[in-house]
Amino acid sequence: MTTLHDPGLRGFASDNYAGVHPEVLQAVAAANGGHQVSYGADAYTARLQEVLVDHFGPRVQGFGVFNGTGANVVGLQAMLPHWGAVICAESAHINTDENGAPERVAGIKLLTVPTPDGKLRPADLDRFPRVPADVHHPLPEVVSITESTELGTAYTAEEIEAVASRAHRLGLAVHMDGSRLANAAAGLGVPLRALTTDVGVDVVSLGGTKNGLMFGELVLAINPDAVTGLAYLQKLNMQLASKMRFLSAQFIALLDGDLWRRSAGRANAMAKRLRTSLEGKINSGVIDGIGFTQPTDANSIFATLPEGVADRLRQKFAFYDWNPAVREVRWVCSFDTTQDDVDDFAMAIEAELAGPA
Amino acid sequence: MTTLHDPGLRGFASDNYAGVHPEVLQAVAAANGGHQVSYGADAYTARLQEVLVDHFGPRVQGFGVFNGTGANVVGLQAMLPHWGAVICAESAHINTDENGAPERVAGIKLLTVPTPDGKLRPADLDRFPRVPADVHHPLPEVVSITESTELGTAYTAEEIEAVASRAHRLGLAVHMDGSRLANAAAGLGVPLRALTTDVGVDVVSLGGTKNGLMFGELVLAINPDAVTGLAYLQKLNMQLASKMRFLSAQFIALLDGDLWRRSAGRANAMAKRLRTSLEGKINSGVIDGIGFTQPTDANSIFATLPEGVADRLRQKFAFYDWNPAVREVRWVCSFDTTQDDVDDFAMAIEAELAGPA
Amino acid sequence: MTTLHDPGLRGFASDNYAGVHPEVLQAVAAANGGHQVSYGADAYTARLQEVLVDHFGPRVQGFGVFNGTGANVVGLQAMLPHWGAVICAESAHINTDENGAPERVAGIKLLTVPTPDGKLRPADLDRFPRVPADVHHPLPEVVSITESTELGTAYTAEEIEAVASRAHRLGLAVHMDGSRLANAAAGLGVPLRALTTDVGVDVVSLGGTKNGLMFGELVLAINPDAVTGLAYLQKLNMQLASKMRFLSAQFIALLDGDLWRRSAGRANAMAKRLRTSLEGKINSGVIDGIGFTQPTDANSIFATLPEGVADRLRQKFAFYDWNPAVREVRWVCSFDTTQDDVDDFAMAIEAELAGPA
Amino acid sequence: MTTLHDPGLRGFASDNYAGVHPEVLQAVAAANGGHQVSYGADAYTARLQEVLVDHFGPRVQGFGVFNGTGANVVGLQAMLPHWGAVICAESAHINTDENGAPERVAGIKLLTVPTPDGKLRPADLDRFPRVPADVHHPLPEVVSITESTELGTAYTAEEIEAVASRAHRLGLAVHMDGSRLANAAAGLGVPLRALTTDVGVDVVSLGGTKNGLMFGELVLAINPDAVTGLAYLQKLNMQLASKMRFLSAQFIALLDGDLWRRSAGRANAMAKRLRTSLEGKINSGVIDGIGFTQPTDANSIFATLPEGVADRLRQKFAFYDWNPAVREVRWVCSFDTTQDDVDDFAMAIEAELAGPA
Repeated sequence: MTTLHDPGLRGFASDNYAGVHPEVLQAVAAANGGHQVSYGADAYTARLQEVLVDHFGPRVQGFGVFNGTGANVVGLQAMLPHWGAVICAESAHINTDENGAPERVAGIKLLTVPTPDGKLRPADLDRFPRVPADVHHPLPEVVSITESTELGTAYTAEEIEAVASRAHRLGLAVHMDGSRLANAAAGLGVPLRALTTDVGVDVVSLGGTKNGLMFGELVLAINPDAVTGLAYLQKLNMQLASKMRFLSAQFIALLDGDLWRRSAGRANAMAKRLRTSLEGKINSGVIDGIGFTQPTDANSIFATLPEGVADRLRQKFAFYDWNPAVREVRWVCSFDTTQDDVDDFAMAIEAELAGPA
Repeated sequence: MTTLHDPGLRGFASDNYAGVHPEVLQAVAAANGGHQVSYGADAYTARLQEVLVDHFGPRVQGFGVFNGTGANVVGLQAMLPHWGAVICAESAHINTDENGAPERVAGIKLLTVPTPDGKLRPADLDRFPRVPADVHHPLPEVVSITESTELGTAYTAEEIEAVASRAHRLGLAVHMDGSRLANAAAGLGVPLRALTTDVGVDVVSLGGTKNGLMFGELVLAINPDAVTGLAYLQKLNMQLASKMRFLSAQFIALLDGDLWRRSAGRANAMAKRLRTSLEGKINSGVIDGIGFTQPTDANSIFATLPEGVADRLRQKFAFYDWNPAVREVRWVCSFDTTQDDVDDFAMAIEAELAGPA
Repeated sequence: MTTLHDPGLRGFASDNYAGVHPEVLQAVAAANGGHQVSYGADAYTARLQEVLVDHFGPRVQGFGVFNGTGANVVGLQAMLPHWGAVICAESAHINTDENGAPERVAGIKLLTVPTPDGKLRPADLDRFPRVPADVHHPLPEVVSITESTELGTAYTAEEIEAVASRAHRLGLAVHMDGSRLANAAAGLGVPLRALTTDVGVDVVSLGGTKNGLMFGELVLAINPDAVTGLAYLQKLNMQLASKMRFLSAQFIALLDGDLWRRSAGRANAMAKRLRTSLEGKINSGVIDGIGFTQPTDANSIFATLPEGVADRLRQKFAFYDWNPAVREVRWVCSFDTTQDDVDDFAMAIEAELAGPA
Repeated sequence: MTTLHDPGLRGFASDNYAGVHPEVLQAVAAANGGHQVSYGADAYTARLQEVLVDHFGPRVQGFGVFNGTGANVVGLQAMLPHWGAVICAESAHINTDENGAPERVAGIKLLTVPTPDGKLRPADLDRFPRVPADVHHPLPEVVSITESTELGTAYTAEEIEAVASRAHRLGLAVHMDGSRLANAAAGLGVPLRALTTDVGVDVVSLGGTKNGLMFGELVLAINPDAVTGLAYLQKLNMQLASKMRFLSAQFIALLDGDLWRRSAGRANAMAKRLRTSLEGKINSGVIDGIGFTQPTDANSIFATLPEGVADRLRQKFAFYDWNPAVREVRWVCSFDTTQDDVDDFAMAIEAELAGPA
């Protein structure tokens, strides 16, 4: 088969627009050939489990699934009885971007909290008292946080610990949507466990796709006491790959070594380069009319632009509107974003926003 | 990453034990690099749609999903209102091997019919009268057939047409679980459309994984009037790949050309070689005590063996018990099974079953 | 409001066609007036709990629900994790007559067994091995039996005990659809506990409507260890009555005393009278061409009739076809069926089937 | 059976604490006796349909269900495809008080809007754009309003029309949770159709229980084009009463004549009497420290009280806390609340809050 697209073209639309990291593709090829037991009883899935223990501690159990929505639904369902509810930020992916999969597939009730930056605070948990004797209100059983958030911000380890310990005191378990956990850890310069195992997170959806895989996420039961039936739920939620070895081999490529950090770190560094460059131009009066609405803790920048600028920039550089009402846009860097990509984009922005001479 | 398994080892356990066909892996590599729009708005998914039209006619619409259970659930849900039921063989994968995914995820009621060979007959549809005024019994809306079946048999085009035309007369739409449709078509020496578009099938789960892909199946709406909301259901059922280009590129490798037929044909030929070889030994009195319980229309053989034989054979060759109560086993060939694999296995069986000198 | 129907007209269609037993209506009136805490924290629900203990033993917990489907779904869901399956007879109400409510509302997988008489035997449980390591096949967790069955037959206490003890050995809990449990107990001349608590039944759907109530059934957790979250499930399955006192008062009328037995016993006695009368006529050669397809252990008779007879009889007496393919009909007696009703009907049948003079 | 409670005791906790209106109980008795076809093919259900046409216009179709949650779930599911979402106020009963039934039973995604008074405004609908091409965000298909609201306020006909016409322009259908619609109509002095049929409401959950029935609500398809499959959904959602005649007879008692208005009007008048009395005492300086947080458009009063007062009052008069954080309480009157009840309560409040002498 021939290549049908321009492999030299990159933009700032999404880390899902990028392809597969070459080391990951090499790992897939290395896992090919011969027969391996299907559905996870293969050598690669066994090895992955060891790698996960190195990162997340001896009790962790990992279950490979196809995508982030699958990871969130399977993980949350495993944490919940037939009647439980999940507290999350209003902006959480599980609430806004999964077309209701948690509700429709798993019958989960979400209890949402508006937040300025996508991050829950401990006090937010008190908005939904956990009263087991009350059969009318959905009973909170889990809090779900996103690291890094949909708004490009990241909780510090201390912030996660504060939410988790309040949650545990209230009788709630802690779930993390970690589709960009690697970006948060790389940005904070800490190991993955510093934001999960070490601060009381019970279950993680660990992202792979945005970090350079072809497909694949992991449901990590860091605290196996917080879940039940994960192997059944992986299957019945249509998330069990028959040729699991190729999903596991990709994660070995990512996690058995530092590819996860190199890949996420590069994306973060490029986002920081872009923001720093633009802030420099602003501060020196070279450009005008742009604002930033969130900190850039990971690989995304949220900015507001004057009328018409976004559409003109998009003629050469792909990116999405975030909140059209306030002309807010989102720019995302990925593992393959180059310094030239960033510098070209910054120049294009400068050309649009050049201040009064 | 290094290879962790023996790439020279193959058995007869499942076509899911095989790896990725080299041409498929090459296609994945060719689709890599640069950025492509995620979630299906990429060049490969667009091209795949053209390829599907070549196979299934101008009205077909394809939706890539992760696995066979996903394809079946998404396809069936798109064919059903909130209250419909599906008639299928008791041995159908949707009934026995998906841990209740159709019921649990999509609330689908299955109405099952016992069959000797996995194939529904037109008269089977009459067991569940379609009486819209009756709110107590689940209303049949769809019949689902499997081609080739879980028992290694294949419907002929005429047999499918007979079921489909009875179904349509009764007001039922026709779904096909085609996880091994390529094997049936290769076995019958007909194009894919001869067993689907041309004989009244409305929706197909088209298998890729068993035919040499790394992962991926397609929901094909051959008759778009028979479905509603497939794009929403693909997403909310957690079956929408963000980096869809890699799923689509694999299917282009399979279907844009004859790889689908070469891959399935090889698996079928090896199954036939094994069966023919064993039948020759039986007929010439060389071996004794083995029986065959189903025709070998595709790539599977179902056999009964004397006590203890299966376990001894399994020390060198992987395969599964099918019905232990009657000592029935299943042997499956795949795209990478070699003549030597088959001949070695036949010799081992002969050694076990050598008749009285 | 005026009466819009003929209160003197009765037939043999269903025990759901009958109205409310006068003692039940009187109990409703006695519970009226003033305010009582809603949703079950009232004096009548508290008293009912004591009455249930008298019948079913000190551990029983009762939850009032609206109808039989509600009782079955709530009870079964409370017995099952997110992934469990239920073994039942193919003819079970949960499989055939609830429009898929168990599957659609609670995601329950039913594993059905064909039976000649609606009764499961212990060996039937072995058809679905319980293998927790197998994630592909739905894992049996519960067996559900119906007492008396949809076919008018009743398990003896010994038969229930045999199924229940095999179930418990296999790790299955035992559910009973007891929408006509009173008829079975009255027919066998035993207390309710003889067919439930004393023989290993864990959870019962206890019927009230067919036994003379206006509406209402009970989910009885005879073994509270077999269920979890019943109070939540009662609510979220839309089965929690706000003015619960009126549901509970009806059950007190039925169970605090012997109304349950008088009501069911009358229905049974009338069915027996009809059958005995017809059998007498057959044996003495007065009538000809009628056959009985099931024993009459409770309040139903299943009979086959010559072509055209059923439709002519129905011009005066309401009843349903059961299996039109073999001209099988069902005749049901209820708490208000009179001897005259039966004798008139027997005469009409005789007029139709009078043998050769 | 004897009466187990004090029929002279009434409070202000809930209109669900009240019993059955005597005219309703009389109607139940009148519908008793003899046999009637079950599941809705009876004379009372037929008559009810005529009565509904008188109120809601010639196209209305009514389906009796057991309770308000059942009415909401059945009605909304009939309005939605497998993937739709419902816009509602954050304080809506479907969001807060049904233990997630819409999500759990029917897989419905709710899109909630904070409101000061429980009432949606047309502009609120714009918060969730309806973009059919977007498969990631749940697609709004329905707006659900509550009349009168959980906060005791009522939309005027004009306000409903404004929301409904905006909804229809956006492609949304309009659902009303009318568990207290009678209170709103009585309060506004308009017929039921003025707040429903005449102003663009498509589907209504019409409350009966809070208006004096023993149990029962109606799903009204005022615009039958806005729903599909209601009869199936009534059944499979466990809301189909076998002895439907008794549910229908109660509604005939309520609606065939002016009982609905007398019952609701009495409750409203008592709430107004209480509020007016207290406001008089406030204005004349007799009491102090009490505030009202919502208008009293129907039969509820929301008030804030000084620390400790609520608990002392509750020693004699039942009522609930609403928002303990601000010491807000809710007082509800019902069809059987008397002037003496109100005056005694007002005196008790005065005794607690007597201002400085």
